Amino acid sequence: MNAPHPATLLRQQLYRDMAPHHLTPLWEVLHALVPPQPGTPCVPALWKYEDVRPFLMRAGEAITAEEAVRRVLILENPSLRGQSAVTQSLYAGLQLILPREVAPSHRHTQSALRFIVEGSGAYTAVDGERTTMRPGDFIITPSWTWHDHGSEADGPVVWLDGLDIPMVRFFDAGFAENGAARSQDVSRPEGTSLARYGHNMVPVRHEPPFGATSPIFSYPYDRSREALEQLERHAPVDAWDGVKLRYVNPLTGGWPMPTIATFMQRLPAGFHGKGFRQTDGAVYSVVEGEGEVAIEHGDNSYAFRFGPRDHFVIPSWHTARLTSARGCVLFSFSDRPVHQALGIHREERLS
Amino acid sequence: MNAPHPATLLRQQLYRDMAPHHLTPLWEVLHALVPPQPGTPCVPALWKYEDVRPFLMRAGEAITAEEAVRRVLILENPSLRGQSAVTQSLYAGLQLILPREVAPSHRHTQSALRFIVEGSGAYTAVDGERTTMRPGDFIITPSWTWHDHGSEADGPVVWLDGLDIPMVRFFDAGFAENGAARSQDVSRPEGTSLARYGHNMVPVRHEPPFGATSPIFSYPYDRSREALEQLERHAPVDAWDGVKLRYVNPLTGGWPMPTIATFMQRLPAGFHGKGFRQTDGAVYSVVEGEGEVAIEHGDNSYAFRFGPRDHFVIPSWHTARLTSARGCVLFSFSDRPVHQALGIHREERLS
Amino acid sequence: MNAPHPATLLRQQLYRDMAPHHLTPLWEVLHALVPPQPGTPCVPALWKYEDVRPFLMRAGEAITAEEAVRRVLILENPSLRGQSAVTQSLYAGLQLILPREVAPSHRHTQSALRFIVEGSGAYTAVDGERTTMRPGDFIITPSWTWHDHGSEADGPVVWLDGLDIPMVRFFDAGFAENGAARSQDVSRPEGTSLARYGHNMVPVRHEPPFGATSPIFSYPYDRSREALEQLERHAPVDAWDGVKLRYVNPLTGGWPMPTIATFMQRLPAGFHGKGFRQTDGAVYSVVEGEGEVAIEHGDNSYAFRFGPRDHFVIPSWHTARLTSARGCVLFSFSDRPVHQALGIHREERLS
Amino acid sequence: MNAPHPATLLRQQLYRDMAPHHLTPLWEVLHALVPPQPGTPCVPALWKYEDVRPFLMRAGEAITAEEAVRRVLILENPSLRGQSAVTQSLYAGLQLILPREVAPSHRHTQSALRFIVEGSGAYTAVDGERTTMRPGDFIITPSWTWHDHGSEADGPVVWLDGLDIPMVRFFDAGFAENGAARSQDVSRPEGTSLARYGHNMVPVRHEPPFGATSPIFSYPYDRSREALEQLERHAPVDAWDGVKLRYVNPLTGGWPMPTIATFMQRLPAGFHGKGFRQTDGAVYSVVEGEGEVAIEHGDNSYAFRFGPRDHFVIPSWHTARLTSARGCVLFSFSDRPVHQALGIHREERLS
Repeated sequence: MNAPHPATLLRQQLYRDMAPHHLTPLWEVLHALVPPQPGTPCVPALWKYEDVRPFLMRAGEAITAEEAVRRVLILENPSLRGQSAVTQSLYAGLQLILPREVAPSHRHTQSALRFIVEGSGAYTAVDGERTTMRPGDFIITPSWTWHDHGSEADGPVVWLDGLDIPMVRFFDAGFAENGAARSQDVSRPEGTSLARYGHNMVPVRHEPPFGATSPIFSYPYDRSREALEQLERHAPVDAWDGVKLRYVNPLTGGWPMPTIATFMQRLPAGFHGKGFRQTDGAVYSVVEGEGEVAIEHGDNSYAFRFGPRDHFVIPSWHTARLTSARGCVLFSFSDRPVHQALGIHREERLS
Repeated sequence: MNAPHPATLLRQQLYRDMAPHHLTPLWEVLHALVPPQPGTPCVPALWKYEDVRPFLMRAGEAITAEEAVRRVLILENPSLRGQSAVTQSLYAGLQLILPREVAPSHRHTQSALRFIVEGSGAYTAVDGERTTMRPGDFIITPSWTWHDHGSEADGPVVWLDGLDIPMVRFFDAGFAENGAARSQDVSRPEGTSLARYGHNMVPVRHEPPFGATSPIFSYPYDRSREALEQLERHAPVDAWDGVKLRYVNPLTGGWPMPTIATFMQRLPAGFHGKGFRQTDGAVYSVVEGEGEVAIEHGDNSYAFRFGPRDHFVIPSWHTARLTSARGCVLFSFSDRPVHQALGIHREERLS
Repeated sequence: MNAPHPATLLRQQLYRDMAPHHLTPLWEVLHALVPPQPGTPCVPALWKYEDVRPFLMRAGEAITAEEAVRRVLILENPSLRGQSAVTQSLYAGLQLILPREVAPSHRHTQSALRFIVEGSGAYTAVDGERTTMRPGDFIITPSWTWHDHGSEADGPVVWLDGLDIPMVRFFDAGFAENGAARSQDVSRPEGTSLARYGHNMVPVRHEPPFGATSPIFSYPYDRSREALEQLERHAPVDAWDGVKLRYVNPLTGGWPMPTIATFMQRLPAGFHGKGFRQTDGAVYSVVEGEGEVAIEHGDNSYAFRFGPRDHFVIPSWHTARLTSARGCVLFSFSDRPVHQALGIHREERLS
Repeated sequence: MNAPHPATLLRQQLYRDMAPHHLTPLWEVLHALVPPQPGTPCVPALWKYEDVRPFLMRAGEAITAEEAVRRVLILENPSLRGQSAVTQSLYAGLQLILPREVAPSHRHTQSALRFIVEGSGAYTAVDGERTTMRPGDFIITPSWTWHDHGSEADGPVVWLDGLDIPMVRFFDAGFAENGAARSQDVSRPEGTSLARYGHNMVPVRHEPPFGATSPIFSYPYDRSREALEQLERHAPVDAWDGVKLRYVNPLTGGWPMPTIATFMQRLPAGFHGKGFRQTDGAVYSVVEGEGEVAIEHGDNSYAFRFGPRDHFVIPSWHTARLTSARGCVLFSFSDRPVHQALGIHREERLS
């Protein structure tokens, strides 16, 4: 073995000398810092509901909602274990509430969505208004807004929680407070927000109640499904997405939350989607029906068969293809609003 | 009588000398040009439907829809006769279509709204999609978009037309074209626009079909009335407006057209509204119920009793008070978007 | 001569019967209301400074600034005499202030610009700050802001006033107040606004002082000319406009006022511009040099030779061609911001 | 020692059983995920130029610019060693270019700023235009824009690089390409961008050349210093910030880059600033003069004396106080635009 090159020695001595000054040479890491294309550490993953549900029920026995504050099993990306993250920027979990339980009121900087997976009759309360949760409903608990929930159902109620926790942690901007009361007072009847903002009309005089977040905090499934069905009848099916709608903030036409985009799509029976990739990683919740997603990234390929209540994640810049023999409905969320605000969103549709 | 003051003579000679050069002294007209408050030439007016309808029916005998192109009786402000204007900036008229008639396709820079007053079963076609018209529906024919209409109804169908004709004329920006065919081809099923944009969701990939105008070109009355009724149950009644909603463009949260704001409001039974005034003059169409509007301006006062299908105008900066013993629903439109874009909108609510 | 057709008689009787009800038939006027292209009543016009100046000086003898409040000769469009309008929506005038005169403080809804034509040493005060006026400076007195002016110059000072008076009158939204004091107190040193907002930097904490109007109320000519000269060296000359810049509100990148666009352009020596037309009518003030504008509209054509301090107007949708043998600098203003806000702006560049 | 509680055992068994399914209990980590206030891992740090400069010069001997591609010593936050990060979301480094060196052309998704620290006569080329670098100049190399640099100076030229590298990595959205040529062709004379966009005027017809990034890619120090000096004379000094301006994108009035805010501030002689904290961590470069920053966070306190060309970092939600006996000028940058876009920015000013 030869002696190291004198230039190498010179550099190594320099690195050693400057290290105590918190200096490090860019040229040794430049390629990794400014890669030719995204090299996310995340991997694709699937959580079958039949696998997860027993653990949820055991959690129901192991801890009360009140003690847990939020009784949630976090869906951790297999390559991000210990980070409470489903992608680098997003958090996902499945939450269980049992009959007669109440989860205490708190508020935090982090924005949260709930997508109802199983059971009816629990409620979420936001800023003095309750909304009943039914499967397929998309509900928001806006940033820095008091929220709690409870159940008057006969059986367990489960939903997907999606939050921007990793993002807010990364930007060092998280604040939180616990409420004084166990649950907040109800000051408005259920349905007020939807009545005010949900019909393509808004009150003449009003302040946006949740700032940049949608004033509608509950988007019921019966309306979303109707929209998808009408669109499937009336418009051509997209070769990549099937029939795909995004939820909007009716006060801006933009995303319902500044940090998270949400979508619902229908793959018609017999759909064989073309491949696509995008920089925003996305989490999917299967609402109805069955299908398959094939995901490729470099030399790795994955194929997940999914059915109702299953969840899966497609990481950034992974090529995905969706297919469905009998048709299905998918809800999904991603960090696209941030990619767009930062001017770094890209997508590619393969032909 | 004394001789004129020498300074006066000097000025008059100056005025005479410079007049051929298209020069005129500001100081003789300054007060009128920059008045302490708006001195609109418009006056309040009421058109009772029982008075107008016979003339509409006679018009139906006197001219065909095809010959008239648009068979409309213009509601002219009594102080703006000959100008085809209901306020200085807006046009209003009542249009009649008879069974089996077709009004030919054209397009123009001017934005138009239709608010259906009587009869069901006629249709408006916009950009390849038809919408059936029913009383209380609010329909848009966007700027520079092909539109036509026809009737498959059994009887007469009548609607209020609201346009920005005087505004576009004032800014010298009107263009128009007649269609080659008698009526445009239908390229999309009825309901497509509402399915795409009407459910607080929008297609992931789309271009706004009508630029700055709402992609929903028909806002059906059953949805608007439901929104009003829910809001009346769920939120406090405003002391000036009752329960008042504005229509929104779901892609922006703003007005449905860049030049015209539209509203629907409900005065609950027993409502005695407080006085208000605003710089935008407004035209009202009574949808259901009865009521009264009292209007004051300087030394003049007006009081109009109104019932279903009546129309009235409240001019700029006139103080108005709305009352209703048995409750009513009112549609209205004004030029508020322009006042806001120009930074000149003002309103005042009397206590 | 034959008897009128029975249908004609029927219609005429209908028109007579409904006229007292303030109803009029659209079909008799539709073509005029919705014309195939703009048919502005305005005509092109030129005001030679050598013709206007003597009248300004005579006005200086005939009335004091204090008595006149604003000693201005209005440039009236020859076809809009008596309307105090240079185009349908804009007002223009030439204002004179003599040594030691003061024009009293007032404020109004109308937005105003001043473009300095002759003389140095007078000042405009806006919201507690004075700015000295020099030829070529573009100054704003924002909507509803106290402003006054006076002169410490040795000789007469003259500027072009441009206002949105006809527009605000048309929309019935004009308010005005006279100040209690003869002239407002000076609360900030001259140059404060430019220091805060003029260097592509703005104070970290500030409220826009004039709402939607630019916080810079004085754009000095030395900076504008430098911008034009640099651009002439560094970028290709536009075949229609020469080298043309628009003034911007540094807080938005948009127009300096919500109602008026302002421009400065340089035609290089030997420039023969191609023809263009646009829906916004424009008023020009010649800053330096000489040139010619040829204007065509239907069968009419006009050719104006212009030199320093001359003013001319190009009405809506008139085709104009600018030429300059020895080079010149032109300031201009139009109502383009309103055309754009209303979605009705069009322009055409002939090849 | 007692045996564990049965409930504890139950939970531990649950955790073990579900771990292979990539499930983890929220309730064990909730407090850390949703903390009462930001608990950044970053610490305050100071890099004295006299310490760093010798290493830069040794780097100049150890590697050529061409071999290094970018010869930069990264300023690593002492608590984020190995992450190439100065705060969690930002990168900072000091770059050296020696006479006659050229650094090759490349482009990347990441946005970069250069703030010139020492030496004159090197240039940055962006999109075909070169700008000469002088101390105090703030220069942008916009996202996905070709850029290179070289030096025609007599001695070393050093600048601060600020990038959003950690942010783009976190969101998995980084792309990069190397140029075919060693350095790009020059297609426009130096000064073109400033001439087009730097004088509160912009070309009438233009497309924003760099999307959401400022079209001015060089903000020269002579203009920024003049703005600060004028403002110090004309406006009150802020008790927390002294005289502080933010750089703006003249096409929007917003930040110069979508991901990074930049500021320049002057502390007058004798300034003793009050304490403040904000969620965006900031990096400072001392332009002129001397001063001190005291930083507190929980039980920790830091005090840094700084002079010309020193650099320091104030992490998120650390309370900082700036003082200067003889006056100084500071440049700084932070990730505030992202905090604002995400709706999570907070700041607090102590009284």
